[in-house]
Amino acid sequence: MGYLFKNISIITIDSNKPEVIIGDLLVEGSKISKIGTKIPKSAHKVIEGKNLLVMPGFINTHAHVSMSLLRGYGDDLELFEWLSSRIWPIESKLTKKDVYIGAKLGIAEMILSGTTTFLDMYQDMEMVGKACQEIGIRGHISRGTIYTGNEKLDHAALLQLEELIDQYHNYDDGRIKVLAGPHAIYTNNKEFLKAQLEIANRRNIGVNIHVSETEKENEDALLTLGKTPISYLDEIGLLDAPYVVASHMVYLTEEDQLIVKNKNIGIAHNPKSNLKLGSGIANIQKYRNKGINVGIGTDGAASNNNLDMLNELQYASLLQKGLNRDATALSAFETLKMATIGGAKVLNINDRVGMLKEGYDADLIMFDMNQPHFYPIENSHISKIVYSAKSSDIVLTMVKGKILMRNRDLTTIDLEKTYKEVSKIMERVYKEND
Amino acid sequence: MGYLFKNISIITIDSNKPEVIIGDLLVEGSKISKIGTKIPKSAHKVIEGKNLLVMPGFINTHAHVSMSLLRGYGDDLELFEWLSSRIWPIESKLTKKDVYIGAKLGIAEMILSGTTTFLDMYQDMEMVGKACQEIGIRGHISRGTIYTGNEKLDHAALLQLEELIDQYHNYDDGRIKVLAGPHAIYTNNKEFLKAQLEIANRRNIGVNIHVSETEKENEDALLTLGKTPISYLDEIGLLDAPYVVASHMVYLTEEDQLIVKNKNIGIAHNPKSNLKLGSGIANIQKYRNKGINVGIGTDGAASNNNLDMLNELQYASLLQKGLNRDATALSAFETLKMATIGGAKVLNINDRVGMLKEGYDADLIMFDMNQPHFYPIENSHISKIVYSAKSSDIVLTMVKGKILMRNRDLTTIDLEKTYKEVSKIMERVYKEND
Repeated sequence: MGYLFKNISIITIDSNKPEVIIGDLLVEGSKISKIGTKIPKSAHKVIEGKNLLVMPGFINTHAHVSMSLLRGYGDDLELFEWLSSRIWPIESKLTKKDVYIGAKLGIAEMILSGTTTFLDMYQDMEMVGKACQEIGIRGHISRGTIYTGNEKLDHAALLQLEELIDQYHNYDDGRIKVLAGPHAIYTNNKEFLKAQLEIANRRNIGVNIHVSETEKENEDALLTLGKTPISYLDEIGLLDAPYVVASHMVYLTEEDQLIVKNKNIGIAHNPKSNLKLGSGIANIQKYRNKGINVGIGTDGAASNNNLDMLNELQYASLLQKGLNRDATALSAFETLKMATIGGAKVLNINDRVGMLKEGYDADLIMFDMNQPHFYPIENSHISKIVYSAKSSDIVLTMVKGKILMRNRDLTTIDLEKTYKEVSKIMERVYKEND
Repeated sequence: MGYLFKNISIITIDSNKPEVIIGDLLVEGSKISKIGTKIPKSAHKVIEGKNLLVMPGFINTHAHVSMSLLRGYGDDLELFEWLSSRIWPIESKLTKKDVYIGAKLGIAEMILSGTTTFLDMYQDMEMVGKACQEIGIRGHISRGTIYTGNEKLDHAALLQLEELIDQYHNYDDGRIKVLAGPHAIYTNNKEFLKAQLEIANRRNIGVNIHVSETEKENEDALLTLGKTPISYLDEIGLLDAPYVVASHMVYLTEEDQLIVKNKNIGIAHNPKSNLKLGSGIANIQKYRNKGINVGIGTDGAASNNNLDMLNELQYASLLQKGLNRDATALSAFETLKMATIGGAKVLNINDRVGMLKEGYDADLIMFDMNQPHFYPIENSHISKIVYSAKSSDIVLTMVKGKILMRNRDLTTIDLEKTYKEVSKIMERVYKEND
């Protein structure tokens, strides 16, 4: 007995053309077992209705979900003031349990806006792993690592990464994966980066790192290292890790782009965060024209300030058109591919998610298009998903065949309880901060 | 008997500080009669609840609502191809009734996303007037006028403007206003612009015009007229009309900005449309620093592709931060002011809407903040409205004391009927287009 989506619009993404088919899709167990027409209803739970549309779930390639706790606390501030007067003082007060509650809040928001997979970086990642385990979302988790110079602390960070791998890597048939997470080149020295690379190579895991987020980062690297962040990472061998997810990548030289292409580095593009922190706009149209693989990410809620991939992919497309003064840049379909199969490639899981295809994991979302902004209903659904839709139109989110949200209700998170827990944390943290 | 909003978060916008007060707000008839605390419930209809927030409705300073009919029909195309192969062929087939149905569709979407006032430009504007009349939204309407060289047609266009004024200007105590709507300098010659200006001056109405939308428009003006569009309009006296709303204004020279400031011209900034058509990004932070008044607009749904002001104001803020590489640019509160009182100033109605204030018209919206993206609920509501909120959080839209939407249901538009009428139009138009 499975879920049968019946007579429904389907964007499979498994095509080079912007096609929407009308048909049936059957989910059995954790997999898509059949896509076709006239699949018999048998004993399946049938999901049908007028103007419904099913597509692969969104893949958020860069997040810090627990930072949901810092949403709306310090906006419109210069980056360093933001970090030193707002973010760091609060973060230093967060307990392991707080990180867990923050992850639940962030994951709730992601499921409600159609994200089925996310890549995360933060502290106390075993708590984010626990949240993924319980909630059922597909989570790729990386311990954000910063070199402190304190031998004991630095050694502990590496140990924690190994423990995180032992505990969570490949949990639930690969629904959870672990990556090494050196925060950035300016927060890690060469030896510490190499130590993390050694673990990644030995344990066969990916590396998740912030690169070229700001122009200053590039200027500093040229000044202190004599090269760009990307060529520095290349030099020390980090780009030869099993796979690398480099987030932001706003300022890549032509030579950087060549390296990124040759080493098959995946980029996590965070358009809203890059705008909001005043970092700039990455010319991902240019990168993509060179054959570089780009996915989309939200970054944390403190610098966005939401975790809504639908919102994010609309920004991605419109910004490329505006930046390149080219209305044809990054079409709706290309953008939709970036947010699904593109993200799956970046996370090295494109053999199982990112498309709707027989044998693939059933990670999918459903839109209810009975809203004024979807009319005329006759016109391109792909255009309307990218340029007109709102996350509130999403009425079903499924991961590995399990429904995590239906009709805007979460099935695995008690929201009211989470709200109360969040308020309790804020009360305590603000008090300590006084 | 009125509507009493009780123990509610209120952003009045009537303050230079980003304040959210907790209190009561009483609407009697079409006006806000009292804002305070402990207003007796008397015989009023009481609206209360946990985590509700009331603020002024959004003012959309640039729209072509009936173009909702063209949503998703021709995206990702170069501007001229878009116009000639998609927009114009369809538009030439639209009847007066089609324009009326398109207006209903667009207005439905606007009410659902918190817009209480809009400025529109299109053909057959008496049909948009009729839609506003029936639905109850505040509509400022302008007949988009293009010089044809055919004396009869051009004369008729001027007559139609006069008739539109006779029929709709100041309808329902000023809820509907009429403006002259010369489309642009490149679609009107000097004499025709002056003829429209003469009507504006004689009838004491505003002028709504597209200016400096693309770099090409400026280059062409310099080539053919020897001056920028703004200095040309200044020279022929158009900027001395009772008031002028200039939309887009992406490419203003320093001298243009001086003229705009001195002549007190209001700018309608359309960030999403300017991106989507590849026009560019207006540096409105710079304009605002010079004391120029800027409002926000959505443009038409064919070049956006929705009419969601909440979405639009988020773009406005984030783009200024990214463009100017300055995280402090266009703060959440400044952006919220632009979308409310700023827009009211642009439309010359800031003595009655754009703020919540005793004696002002009751044009307001209410958010239900019980959503993950509003948590922690303890942090700034203003930040969350601008950077995190979604239009689906809006649960009440009121214009002149009349509720047009409550709990996502429209009170004055039959949506199902409108959808059917839209489908009928598309069926016919596409057939004729074959």
